[in-house]
Amino acid sequence: MPKLILVRHGQSEWNLANRFTGWWDVELTEQGVAEASAAGTLLTEKGVLPTVAFTSLQTRAIKTLHLALEACGRLWIPETKDWRLNERHYGGLTGLDKQQTRDKHGDEQVHIWRRSFDVPPPELEPGSEFDLSKDPRYAGIAVPRTESLKLTIERVLPYWESAILPQISAGETVIVSAHGNSLRALVKHLSNISDEDITGLEIPTGQPIVYDFGENLRPSAERYYLKDA
Amino acid sequence: MPKLILVRHGQSEWNLANRFTGWWDVELTEQGVAEASAAGTLLTEKGVLPTVAFTSLQTRAIKTLHLALEACGRLWIPETKDWRLNERHYGGLTGLDKQQTRDKHGDEQVHIWRRSFDVPPPELEPGSEFDLSKDPRYAGIAVPRTESLKLTIERVLPYWESAILPQISAGETVIVSAHGNSLRALVKHLSNISDEDITGLEIPTGQPIVYDFGENLRPSAERYYLKDA
Repeated sequence: MPKLILVRHGQSEWNLANRFTGWWDVELTEQGVAEASAAGTLLTEKGVLPTVAFTSLQTRAIKTLHLALEACGRLWIPETKDWRLNERHYGGLTGLDKQQTRDKHGDEQVHIWRRSFDVPPPELEPGSEFDLSKDPRYAGIAVPRTESLKLTIERVLPYWESAILPQISAGETVIVSAHGNSLRALVKHLSNISDEDITGLEIPTGQPIVYDFGENLRPSAERYYLKDA
Repeated sequence: MPKLILVRHGQSEWNLANRFTGWWDVELTEQGVAEASAAGTLLTEKGVLPTVAFTSLQTRAIKTLHLALEACGRLWIPETKDWRLNERHYGGLTGLDKQQTRDKHGDEQVHIWRRSFDVPPPELEPGSEFDLSKDPRYAGIAVPRTESLKLTIERVLPYWESAILPQISAGETVIVSAHGNSLRALVKHLSNISDEDITGLEIPTGQPIVYDFGENLRPSAERYYLKDA
């Protein structure tokens, strides 16, 4: 029975500092590294060994994948990286911590951006410190200036359909190492979660979530945390 | 101008212990880890930044690649792993150290196996401790029982032609993280080294070797160590 394993990257430096990160490339903390390795150890313990891997173009997700695969002896499986699994782009909020964001935009507005499905934050100013449009990693890609969760889903799901689902269909055990919002996109789709509810769904770092798939290329049951399996 | 960067994995535990390794999967030593990171730092210093990566299915080469890419900020480039870049299979010598090999087979015979182009060591016994034919990593692959350098070249070069060279042709800066003998195969081909001479060519661990390519998909000059560039 094909399985899909979702892993949100381990704690990053900006998770810890409570800064909006989005597409900005930050490192894992020591705790994040430990979480990633622990995820791989859990895969071994539960005998759920990935055969194909997907991740984003962001260091924190790639390193989480490598640490987890190393811990379960599977560094050798094929791995594909794609920007469509990147974190939601937080636009002009990128780099701000919670307090700075509140000071600049007010509590109410921050709450709207955090919790609304389709209201994107203000656009990132071109040429600003966090402008990645000229990063060689994104050559040939129209780097967004900002994204709502809705816009994030609109680039994650086509990638799911075209690249990841065919691997499930071929019977592979697929691991996706990605980000809070790119994983929300997948969970919303696979668990039929409403636009209102999805924005409140928290995906913990470094904690593998599993879907078992049936024959019709839909999950055969609800998702579960591998630690509880 | 497209470039090809060849990196032999950093020192492994069995390099250190002087044991024939071949396809057996061993870890990098602490020194090997440092060599791999230093290779990546050198890539940054010399401004030779890979855009596409290839490696074998063996942990020591994959980790070397990841450490080097991390050190030059390029973990995000596409990476393809293939068994045809694996080390030469040392057959029945796998696991033996130099002394054990001499005791078992005699000095002269060991010298022949180490230095001859087309004489493979004795075959690995099926079911022996080092038999990898049932390793899931090699599912669908006819794992060799032993290989001469000639046999190694016969699986490396078709992969070079079909998978790596097209990337050079597309203008990419390609990094190949692999093994003493799979890299000898490439160097023999690209530098026109004779069957007799190639067996004496040592490729140092963790030391990037570069070929610059011209327009005819042949190197435009002889290879060089990046540290000397």
